[in-house]
Amino acid sequence: MKKLDYGDIVTIYIDPKRIYTIRITENNILGTDKGYIKHNDIVGKRYGEHIYTSQGVKAYLLKPLLIDYLHAINRVTQIIYPKDSSLMIYLSSINPDSKILEAGVGTGFLTISLANFISNRGKIIGFDIRKEHLEIAKHNLEKAGLIDKVQLVLGDIRDSSIVQEEVFDAVFYDLPDPWNALETAYRALKPSMPILIYVPTVNQVEKTVVSMKISNKFIDIHVYEVLLREYLAEEGATRPKTFMIGHTGYIVFARKIV
Amino acid sequence: MKKLDYGDIVTIYIDPKRIYTIRITENNILGTDKGYIKHNDIVGKRYGEHIYTSQGVKAYLLKPLLIDYLHAINRVTQIIYPKDSSLMIYLSSINPDSKILEAGVGTGFLTISLANFISNRGKIIGFDIRKEHLEIAKHNLEKAGLIDKVQLVLGDIRDSSIVQEEVFDAVFYDLPDPWNALETAYRALKPSMPILIYVPTVNQVEKTVVSMKISNKFIDIHVYEVLLREYLAEEGATRPKTFMIGHTGYIVFARKIV
Amino acid sequence: MKKLDYGDIVTIYIDPKRIYTIRITENNILGTDKGYIKHNDIVGKRYGEHIYTSQGVKAYLLKPLLIDYLHAINRVTQIIYPKDSSLMIYLSSINPDSKILEAGVGTGFLTISLANFISNRGKIIGFDIRKEHLEIAKHNLEKAGLIDKVQLVLGDIRDSSIVQEEVFDAVFYDLPDPWNALETAYRALKPSMPILIYVPTVNQVEKTVVSMKISNKFIDIHVYEVLLREYLAEEGATRPKTFMIGHTGYIVFARKIV
Amino acid sequence: MKKLDYGDIVTIYIDPKRIYTIRITENNILGTDKGYIKHNDIVGKRYGEHIYTSQGVKAYLLKPLLIDYLHAINRVTQIIYPKDSSLMIYLSSINPDSKILEAGVGTGFLTISLANFISNRGKIIGFDIRKEHLEIAKHNLEKAGLIDKVQLVLGDIRDSSIVQEEVFDAVFYDLPDPWNALETAYRALKPSMPILIYVPTVNQVEKTVVSMKISNKFIDIHVYEVLLREYLAEEGATRPKTFMIGHTGYIVFARKIV
Repeated sequence: MKKLDYGDIVTIYIDPKRIYTIRITENNILGTDKGYIKHNDIVGKRYGEHIYTSQGVKAYLLKPLLIDYLHAINRVTQIIYPKDSSLMIYLSSINPDSKILEAGVGTGFLTISLANFISNRGKIIGFDIRKEHLEIAKHNLEKAGLIDKVQLVLGDIRDSSIVQEEVFDAVFYDLPDPWNALETAYRALKPSMPILIYVPTVNQVEKTVVSMKISNKFIDIHVYEVLLREYLAEEGATRPKTFMIGHTGYIVFARKIV
Repeated sequence: MKKLDYGDIVTIYIDPKRIYTIRITENNILGTDKGYIKHNDIVGKRYGEHIYTSQGVKAYLLKPLLIDYLHAINRVTQIIYPKDSSLMIYLSSINPDSKILEAGVGTGFLTISLANFISNRGKIIGFDIRKEHLEIAKHNLEKAGLIDKVQLVLGDIRDSSIVQEEVFDAVFYDLPDPWNALETAYRALKPSMPILIYVPTVNQVEKTVVSMKISNKFIDIHVYEVLLREYLAEEGATRPKTFMIGHTGYIVFARKIV
Repeated sequence: MKKLDYGDIVTIYIDPKRIYTIRITENNILGTDKGYIKHNDIVGKRYGEHIYTSQGVKAYLLKPLLIDYLHAINRVTQIIYPKDSSLMIYLSSINPDSKILEAGVGTGFLTISLANFISNRGKIIGFDIRKEHLEIAKHNLEKAGLIDKVQLVLGDIRDSSIVQEEVFDAVFYDLPDPWNALETAYRALKPSMPILIYVPTVNQVEKTVVSMKISNKFIDIHVYEVLLREYLAEEGATRPKTFMIGHTGYIVFARKIV
Repeated sequence: MKKLDYGDIVTIYIDPKRIYTIRITENNILGTDKGYIKHNDIVGKRYGEHIYTSQGVKAYLLKPLLIDYLHAINRVTQIIYPKDSSLMIYLSSINPDSKILEAGVGTGFLTISLANFISNRGKIIGFDIRKEHLEIAKHNLEKAGLIDKVQLVLGDIRDSSIVQEEVFDAVFYDLPDPWNALETAYRALKPSMPILIYVPTVNQVEKTVVSMKISNKFIDIHVYEVLLREYLAEEGATRPKTFMIGHTGYIVFARKIV
């Protein structure tokens, strides 16, 4: 494995509560409450190796995974958590060649996740109605080294003329009123391909599904909720963690018919 | 979108309980309790369109998604369900170029899921100790049109000499005794890269995690369990479904350190 | 412990799938697919002891618990399951002296549960608008030996004149439209005492809670949902059961203010 | 309803985060960050009515329910939460006349819950090996006005000679090693009556159940886990709360056979 150099991204793991994802920059310093780390000292090391903070605490140098960006990105909106985006991506069956429509992009964490799973032959077109969201998303995608796979567009997805017809393999929505953008999704999707919608409330679920049913344009409609439990595994004392996220949102899945 | 022809795979959706995934074969017939469908009648149609069964029931022609193979494949072992494999894949951060080690392959449903997310530049090496498992897995991968991305190998993953050193971006285990194959995973993984382990019982979780901790070869160890709820969304009567899968298995995640 | 005699109720436990709760009746016979049991043969035995079926299978004689009536009663409506009724009863803080208002009684399983927890100094007034429900409930309460603690009344709880003012320590509702019976609950409850409402859909939860808030007659409003997991505990192979009940209903709790 | 007087217990509800349960004491003052309340000003009011704090904030006067003691009691140990104790109590089928064995008493919150459901004809014998626990439990039971129904005993429940034979209708254990006290439970229980055990880890569940099975002294063994979700119900925006308790403990149920 190649030696780390300036410009490389690295996730620094000190302990479960101290995980930092940085781009190695000449003369820069990462400060933590367990001591600081000079970026220069990382250069020449390899992923998987460790260095020590100024306080002598071990810090592992890891190649960033998707989940590391969860904590590393700037946030301007609620993000879709891995427990939800993972199922959405799986259900969508996107592959390296997929053309994907996403709206609203928001902070861009779902965009990062989607971009990870496509190659240069695929493409994500990401819409948002707020310029400041797109700027943050662009910044976050650049940080993750995935901006090449994404085209960010300022615009209102509820206006169906904004998208090309039947070119997308999957549509992902994280919108307050997805029922107002079903027509756009329908126009954008290749026949029989899926739409994945994320909404936080039961009312949005109901309005979305009822709109889909009335439209007669989608079948195989499903609504999912993912509960994720974490466990503490120790010899003779294994049990779930005391606290958990009780709710993030619901996922609506459907396929376009013609 | 191109017209369907002999040799194409199509998912036929009649209703939520009648979904069939077939390869269109000349003069073949799909029989259902809502009437039969002649394969020949599908030729010339497009994904998203519908035909009628011999009983006049509408049947939609869909491009198969990953979840459609869940019901279409031959099974010889318990499979890893989408709720679990989706999180495993996400946590692994595999991308189109990834080299992946998988054991045991079993029925090959996780293999199909992994293969979907890689391009021809990536590769899956899939081990199993039973020849009959590999034959079924091969058959299932062929059905899904993904066999080109997978190399199936008969062998015991607990023998670490069986794998090349530091060439894999991720390791996926579905084994009764994963703690006996940690050395192999460690050898196979590129530094800092992740291992994902699926086990049905709490005891296996504990043994796996304790072995990892004692080895001092893995960090960032996490144990997850995914509970998936489905909802019935209807105007004025939205609620979760009455029955759910209460348990499938636990997911152990960790990263190799050097 | 006294010897069992004709007229006594006994729960016969053969295995987890064969549990029967009967009243011992002269010359009667209990037929099961593991052989039959003559009631006469139970007489003279004690709770905790066992007899054998005609096929030589061991059958334990148990004193019936609340949960045994779950399977023993005649059902005409959906019932409130122990996972839900237990929390409702706990939250209500009813004690042996409590005067309880219940509507609709339906099959009477919640009534049986409530009656178990009060003494002859307490009382349950149970309403239902269907005569046939009350007859089944009466039959079930008699079977459980608890009819003395309950007064069953035919009537529409949405008519608030039907109840006495400020005499009840707790109100329990299992109605399709509880928001139409809040006025009755308010009238019936002693000041500051709680109402517990069970509804199957999210829409009913929302309508109930919104009505409560608008009325300004209730505070400390909470909505709960109970998920119950069962585990299989075996040496080295402990895990949750594969199937579970995914949904029964929601519980709304609130207290009357004046 | 009678007027409140010195010595009465009252739960003061200002808002969901400000709930206080006090005994009205002459010239005493309850301080809160929303202003103070003079106990003297409560005298002469009735449950369900409100007064105002020194800052003019409304404060409702409520009759304490079981759940109010959850926050009002002194704690020296982890307590068993209502979601768990409610199911334990229900499964036990205790009624106003029940004789109950409990160990270890700890903070006494389960004891308070049990005592609520029995009359003066019932009785709880509560064991703990620590004198300081029993003192806190006594204090808490006095606060709840339920001390008359409970006899607290210093002693080690693992010594079966400590209990009378076959006098108890139910046994409740909250012990680190319940498998060492099964003999005591067996001796204490009336034939066929239930034992309810609460343990935080999966390992304790397994050891307890395996011990029970080996002993051949208990049947109908079940292991339960309760997950409680709370909902926010608002017009058009109903959803589960973001955070929840992910784990407290497991419940083991079984019945004594002879």
